[in-house]
Amino acid sequence: MIETLTQEETDALLREQVVGRVGCHAEGLTYVVPVIYAYDGAMITVATVEGQKTRMMRANPSVCFEVDVYEGPGRWRSAIVQGTYEELGGEEAGAALAALAARFSGDGPARRPGASGRETVVFRIVVSEATGRAVRRGAER
Amino acid sequence: MIETLTQEETDALLREQVVGRVGCHAEGLTYVVPVIYAYDGAMITVATVEGQKTRMMRANPSVCFEVDVYEGPGRWRSAIVQGTYEELGGEEAGAALAALAARFSGDGPARRPGASGRETVVFRIVVSEATGRAVRRGAER
Repeated sequence: MIETLTQEETDALLREQVVGRVGCHAEGLTYVVPVIYAYDGAMITVATVEGQKTRMMRANPSVCFEVDVYEGPGRWRSAIVQGTYEELGGEEAGAALAALAARFSGDGPARRPGASGRETVVFRIVVSEATGRAVRRGAER
Repeated sequence: MIETLTQEETDALLREQVVGRVGCHAEGLTYVVPVIYAYDGAMITVATVEGQKTRMMRANPSVCFEVDVYEGPGRWRSAIVQGTYEELGGEEAGAALAALAARFSGDGPARRPGASGRETVVFRIVVSEATGRAVRRGAER
């Protein structure tokens, strides 16, 4: 049984999860990539490194963001967001990194080239629409 | 530290995971949605219901498929697949459903309208490229 989550339930799911996936599309290619994120009710904030996804999101800032949690056979919740990519710089990037570091203490990205040698990119996805669903097949059995 | 998985490691990750995400794009919209799947080394097989993703994948069969596993602070593996959507019918759909049901005993989709009232759609993604990555930041600390 597929249920639609309320806006509050969708919001709660986005706040509680740690790993989500960004979906982007440019030049005929669709690309889905996992990220660690923070969500404040209006924006999803991510720190990553330069690469394919940053190039694609700059080319086409209309992106999708997804989280899901599998809670056992036939039971899961998911949220799907449509939004717009915005790259952060200067003080905004610093504040976002601090917020991410506070959320993931000991696991926060530093604003310097990482072990990969690539520059850190801080971005947010400004949420235009967020929908959520729950499947609770297990409860029927 | 971001490492590239070998083809064997990427393949193993795709075989061991249960939930993945399909990314598709049509008419300017990018959409990422979780699915339960099976992988046989060449194709990803999914049973779902009629809806936005099936409409979009029929319109544009070039899709992305992603799995990830978060193994603790700073440690994860992910695989990203590029492939082509193919809808299954007849005996192929029946065989695919049986394989999915065998993998997810007690959780397999039946080939009938589900509790949602929507028709089941069985499809596969024929893999053209699969790449994998591991982040093992935790090991450095």
